[in-house]
Amino acid sequence: MRAAVYHGKNDIRVEEIAEPGPPGPRQVRLRPYLSGICGTDLHEYAAGPIVIPTAPHPLTGAAAPQVLGHEFSGEVLEVGSDVTGVRTGDRVAVMPLIHCGQCYYCLRGLNHLCSTMACTGLSWQGGGISEQVVVPDHQVCPLPDTVSDIQGALVEPTAVAAYGVDRTGFRAGDTVLVTGAGPIGALVTLYAHAGGASKLIVSEPNAKRRALIEALGVATVLDPLVDDVPDAVRELTGGIGVDVAAECSGTEGGLSVALASLRSHGTATQVGLHVAPAMIDPMALSHRDLSLIGTWCYPVHDFPRITALIATGRLPVEKVLTEVIGVGDIVARGFERLLDPAADAQKLLVRVNS
Amino acid sequence: MRAAVYHGKNDIRVEEIAEPGPPGPRQVRLRPYLSGICGTDLHEYAAGPIVIPTAPHPLTGAAAPQVLGHEFSGEVLEVGSDVTGVRTGDRVAVMPLIHCGQCYYCLRGLNHLCSTMACTGLSWQGGGISEQVVVPDHQVCPLPDTVSDIQGALVEPTAVAAYGVDRTGFRAGDTVLVTGAGPIGALVTLYAHAGGASKLIVSEPNAKRRALIEALGVATVLDPLVDDVPDAVRELTGGIGVDVAAECSGTEGGLSVALASLRSHGTATQVGLHVAPAMIDPMALSHRDLSLIGTWCYPVHDFPRITALIATGRLPVEKVLTEVIGVGDIVARGFERLLDPAADAQKLLVRVNS
Repeated sequence: MRAAVYHGKNDIRVEEIAEPGPPGPRQVRLRPYLSGICGTDLHEYAAGPIVIPTAPHPLTGAAAPQVLGHEFSGEVLEVGSDVTGVRTGDRVAVMPLIHCGQCYYCLRGLNHLCSTMACTGLSWQGGGISEQVVVPDHQVCPLPDTVSDIQGALVEPTAVAAYGVDRTGFRAGDTVLVTGAGPIGALVTLYAHAGGASKLIVSEPNAKRRALIEALGVATVLDPLVDDVPDAVRELTGGIGVDVAAECSGTEGGLSVALASLRSHGTATQVGLHVAPAMIDPMALSHRDLSLIGTWCYPVHDFPRITALIATGRLPVEKVLTEVIGVGDIVARGFERLLDPAADAQKLLVRVNS
Repeated sequence: MRAAVYHGKNDIRVEEIAEPGPPGPRQVRLRPYLSGICGTDLHEYAAGPIVIPTAPHPLTGAAAPQVLGHEFSGEVLEVGSDVTGVRTGDRVAVMPLIHCGQCYYCLRGLNHLCSTMACTGLSWQGGGISEQVVVPDHQVCPLPDTVSDIQGALVEPTAVAAYGVDRTGFRAGDTVLVTGAGPIGALVTLYAHAGGASKLIVSEPNAKRRALIEALGVATVLDPLVDDVPDAVRELTGGIGVDVAAECSGTEGGLSVALASLRSHGTATQVGLHVAPAMIDPMALSHRDLSLIGTWCYPVHDFPRITALIATGRLPVEKVLTEVIGVGDIVARGFERLLDPAADAQKLLVRVNS
């Protein structure tokens, strides 16, 4: 079968690999519909291996070469003998995290911080950019008919965005700034809108990404290269500043703008991943009672809630999609394109099975 | 009457000034017992005026020259016609903040973030380092007999320390690191102990301050110039890291150690005041779900609770006191000494009235 396989830095190959064996008692065999390319995948391609293990992973035994794809939807082809939650033919989204269930964090419900965390498509014997994959049954989240295959493939990044907002204590009616309108920033915008934000402001320097956010029709869009964002935010919020700022750019400038745009006692959330240290002004944190909350992935149990929210029609996640590409184009029209800062791409999904 | 008056940078004079006039209907005249010298006072002396207004303050009309002293206890000498909460002869601590009661923040109970905040001893017609002072009646917090004059003068910095801990969501049984054992760090340590911390670790480079914390008998004390603090903290917490870190040093190094010593999903609080920007690692914030919470002063309504806690005997705040000095020594043995990094002083109180 065909799969996109990570062999090392700048070395992703679309190749024929063996089909997975039969699912274990608590596993399911899936036929992926669509898989996203995530920032983590880009980091592995450009600078890895980082997360992908080169020696057998302690929880799963997986190691590179690694089939990619951890944001995907698919159809259940076969279920193991003890699987009760899904049946052959069911449509599902895949919650890719694999946690030990025993460590300090797992015992406290913080399974996304599991000390030996693995992940389908990064440190498991298979991934979503593949004609078939076998996964643990606790990973599959059934999709109602009102959630499309495309929406199903976007549940994972939407869960990331949602957790970023949830960690701030966001409430309906709050005012929200989003710095950085990549896929996660766009999904944060849509999630905050679905949750009742009374005002949404997005700051993004890339004109194409600004246009995409404008097209969502839910936010005031600023260009940090032209606008004084904190000043503009205060003007848009009656001189006060926003209740919540979601930093989705992974840049020092974005973080600085996010903190400076908060009202006193407001909360910023660090959703974007920084690759370098950043300077902040701790005196402003003190003087204005500000909070800065880091957020990592999502609690595993969030998937059914996010799927149910998408099913209501209030969270049109498919609007962040730029294009569906074929697996054969994954490097040239996928990875290379997304790594180009001037690229026109927002979220890309990869189709393996036709 | 005698008072310590701020005239400008490096210019604090102990001089004779006029006694305040009779208290207004909702004011009280006090005879201060003891007054602390605070970090804010030191900043005003070394680099001010910063907080002390040079033009009339919008809320109070006060401007330099300014009688100093915003951490003090005293005796009620006279009450205005409409005062019901205290009587002549009562012993009180003074909550020095003066808020407008009408702004965005005051309406939400965040009166310490009042947009036109003033403060007795900084931007009011009088201060605690004075033979007498007239203050608004909402500032006085009666002291029970079991709270001493010295403890009463320490309620204000203890409220600062308490708010720093409270903002983290600290719970009895939590493990706590304190970086920086100045007066606020020492009070944070005592407050966390009073609140049931199961393990307290304090990091402080100054040997004299380490000795003071050792003498409290409630914490493991580390020297960040010798110990690898995050490693030592993990060793002391079963390999996990602390639930809460209170950054009380106001230094980049202290902040870095505080964040690195947290368990994942833990919370650091920025209590120390930084005078310069600081580098942080936002990726660690993300990857480990960390929170960094700025804290400013204290909610005004915290004073009775702090006073009641001191009255139980569980919060021996007087242990952070190094010495009581006479007002005549306030510059040489007060300000100059506290600004010397090698100084042996922890908390100093100033006595004006004998």
